[in-house]
Amino acid sequence: MSTPWLPVPDGSPFGVRNLPYGVFTPRTRAARSDGVAGRPSRAGRRRIGTAVGDWVLDLAAASRATGAVFADLLDAPHLGPLMAAGRPTWTRVRRAVTTWLTDPSYRATLTPHLYPRAEVTSHLPFEVADYVDFCSNEHHAANMAAMLGPGRPALPPAWKHVPIGRHGRAGTVVVSGTPIRRPHGAYRPAPDAPPVFGPSRRLDIEAEIGFVVGFPTPPGFPVALPDLRRHVFGVCLVNDWSARDIEALEYQPLGPFLGKSFATSVSPWLVPLDALEEARVRPPRRDVAPPSYLDDRDGEPWGLDITLEIALNGHPVSRPPFATTYWTPAQQLAHLTVGGAPLRTGDLFASGAVSGPRRDQRGSLMELSWAGQEPLDLPDGTRRSFLADGDTVSVGATAPGPRGTRIGFGEVVGRVEPA
Amino acid sequence: MSTPWLPVPDGSPFGVRNLPYGVFTPRTRAARSDGVAGRPSRAGRRRIGTAVGDWVLDLAAASRATGAVFADLLDAPHLGPLMAAGRPTWTRVRRAVTTWLTDPSYRATLTPHLYPRAEVTSHLPFEVADYVDFCSNEHHAANMAAMLGPGRPALPPAWKHVPIGRHGRAGTVVVSGTPIRRPHGAYRPAPDAPPVFGPSRRLDIEAEIGFVVGFPTPPGFPVALPDLRRHVFGVCLVNDWSARDIEALEYQPLGPFLGKSFATSVSPWLVPLDALEEARVRPPRRDVAPPSYLDDRDGEPWGLDITLEIALNGHPVSRPPFATTYWTPAQQLAHLTVGGAPLRTGDLFASGAVSGPRRDQRGSLMELSWAGQEPLDLPDGTRRSFLADGDTVSVGATAPGPRGTRIGFGEVVGRVEPA
Repeated sequence: MSTPWLPVPDGSPFGVRNLPYGVFTPRTRAARSDGVAGRPSRAGRRRIGTAVGDWVLDLAAASRATGAVFADLLDAPHLGPLMAAGRPTWTRVRRAVTTWLTDPSYRATLTPHLYPRAEVTSHLPFEVADYVDFCSNEHHAANMAAMLGPGRPALPPAWKHVPIGRHGRAGTVVVSGTPIRRPHGAYRPAPDAPPVFGPSRRLDIEAEIGFVVGFPTPPGFPVALPDLRRHVFGVCLVNDWSARDIEALEYQPLGPFLGKSFATSVSPWLVPLDALEEARVRPPRRDVAPPSYLDDRDGEPWGLDITLEIALNGHPVSRPPFATTYWTPAQQLAHLTVGGAPLRTGDLFASGAVSGPRRDQRGSLMELSWAGQEPLDLPDGTRRSFLADGDTVSVGATAPGPRGTRIGFGEVVGRVEPA
Repeated sequence: MSTPWLPVPDGSPFGVRNLPYGVFTPRTRAARSDGVAGRPSRAGRRRIGTAVGDWVLDLAAASRATGAVFADLLDAPHLGPLMAAGRPTWTRVRRAVTTWLTDPSYRATLTPHLYPRAEVTSHLPFEVADYVDFCSNEHHAANMAAMLGPGRPALPPAWKHVPIGRHGRAGTVVVSGTPIRRPHGAYRPAPDAPPVFGPSRRLDIEAEIGFVVGFPTPPGFPVALPDLRRHVFGVCLVNDWSARDIEALEYQPLGPFLGKSFATSVSPWLVPLDALEEARVRPPRRDVAPPSYLDDRDGEPWGLDITLEIALNGHPVSRPPFATTYWTPAQQLAHLTVGGAPLRTGDLFASGAVSGPRRDQRGSLMELSWAGQEPLDLPDGTRRSFLADGDTVSVGATAPGPRGTRIGFGEVVGRVEPA
């Protein structure tokens, strides 16, 4: 059951232990088992797929071809119906897709429904309901606090007591590859100067891990720590683009607003939580006892050993280790719901920027350049503190999979367009 | 064209100059023009209506009965299709509904589609896309800043330069009448005490005016000040329930989160922007010149002379004057989109708590009781600083209409249930 009948290149992020879900439209005809170009696809129609090796399998077509009972759930332009169906269905579909791709008797039936991954267009795989951005990484939080100047506490006052977070703008969540236009906004060109209006001069990234809620809850039913699996459908990469100058002007006392609500990019492939079992690790030691609903000392650990990699114009600049993140996704979800808020299918909550203790593990340019005081010198001879027009940022990640394999997340990519 | 053929009681909030839109299900049979009980309604189906006097007119049924071309837009379980259709359609529908209710020749045709308003159940009239809560009233902002203690500036640093706001949780927006369960959360029982977890002890309200976006925009197309009418479909009352103790623990530096994301109530009837023409007034004098995209000195004024009324357990406790609000809805919308964020049908942006200069004009209990230092004595002998279990809060509002009439918003009501 573990060897695919189609070739999966060594080092592919998408082996048969991964099988992430996405939404795509083919740009070419489907392959055919006899090697002849297949019939034209119904162009433009969005369809659900899974990525495997260099291919994408059309899951609705595969379900129909194999007579799977869940075909209707997959015949949709986004993952909503599958996500809402809940974990027993997710398990059933995942088992079936694994069988399809590893049992050679399915080869002839399914080959017509495989598309070269390089020749599909990816779309936002789910309709975002509410988007929450946490600030759950201690290194990031401490770096940001330190840059605000001496005399401040090392962390915000509540930081070790509860996960700090905010709601973002769901309508600005876009799929990887969407161009990022430099936002206009009001900011102070110097710390004590009066505000001016213009294109942001401190455009930045935040490399994060995002968690996508599938199975909803009614109001008033908090999700306890052990119930993460019941509700979280998949995991993706998030780049929460940030205009540091706009944010600096506006953030007191209601938090960042326009500085973080022009674009948030997500990777196109949602890695099932089941694919990350081997990546689970103990989170950092809790040096302040949290409230009972967040106390995970005796439960199963939900730290995740995911290594991110940030590249700027193709040059790797950082490898943030998600395992250093203080608050786990289970704690984030428990916190998000403890006040009675319901969960909706499509809720997205993200970790906040992921940073490690070393400079080359920081998850934002603000930290990497220490607010512009220590610009980055790139191998092509250019220098950056914040993003220039035309820059391309890609964030990738992998995690340990079974038997020495790696589970890949693919990438979330964005190119900066002029204001 | 201005006198309805059905009786509208004096002082009714819903005269024929108002005609707000809502979504309802009948609890009884429709009236019949001959006074005999009509056929059973298709129970449970949500339908779009307009409130007039003590009645609700089923607009899809009325459209079909009159052969209106826009019947399909109104045959929906929420206002989304009508809202998305844009202003020319809104004008056409409003004119038609006005004619239906003022031209006696429609009486026989439409009477079967009238339901007593007291016998319908109201629902959330639109699907909330993104919810933004501004803090646009100077009295409220100054009161909150003053209560944080001496030595602080009278207003947050950017307050007069740009509208300060934050994203809220769209999934917790509920219609008036939905019970409000006291939220659990972490808070400090005393200013320097360590945090504890439990039911909020400082449950509060914020009486606000909300603006609902109908016609959407693509990313990168900011809405200029004169274009408010093109995008805002209707206006409602908002009670942004707030747990002051939870908020106080968590708000630095990302702003309020769980303290304001357990429930936000909205009134069931969306007052068309067209019904508020006579309510438009100059906003307060701008004593700091804002950036150009917010400069409304030469444009048409979008202050609104709406008077709110807050009642606690039936006792009026405050009459906040919305006209004192510094940032207008046109400025709020221009600000919200200036960084490139798209608008979606169903986006809701609210003013933040509305307060006037006098004590009996404050829009929250935090301000009315001055953080608990000056409790309110109610006529029934009870005393309140914050809300007790079982308390009912209602917020109503009216504005000037044509020829001395008043345009009413109805009410947004909520009763506090124990944690």
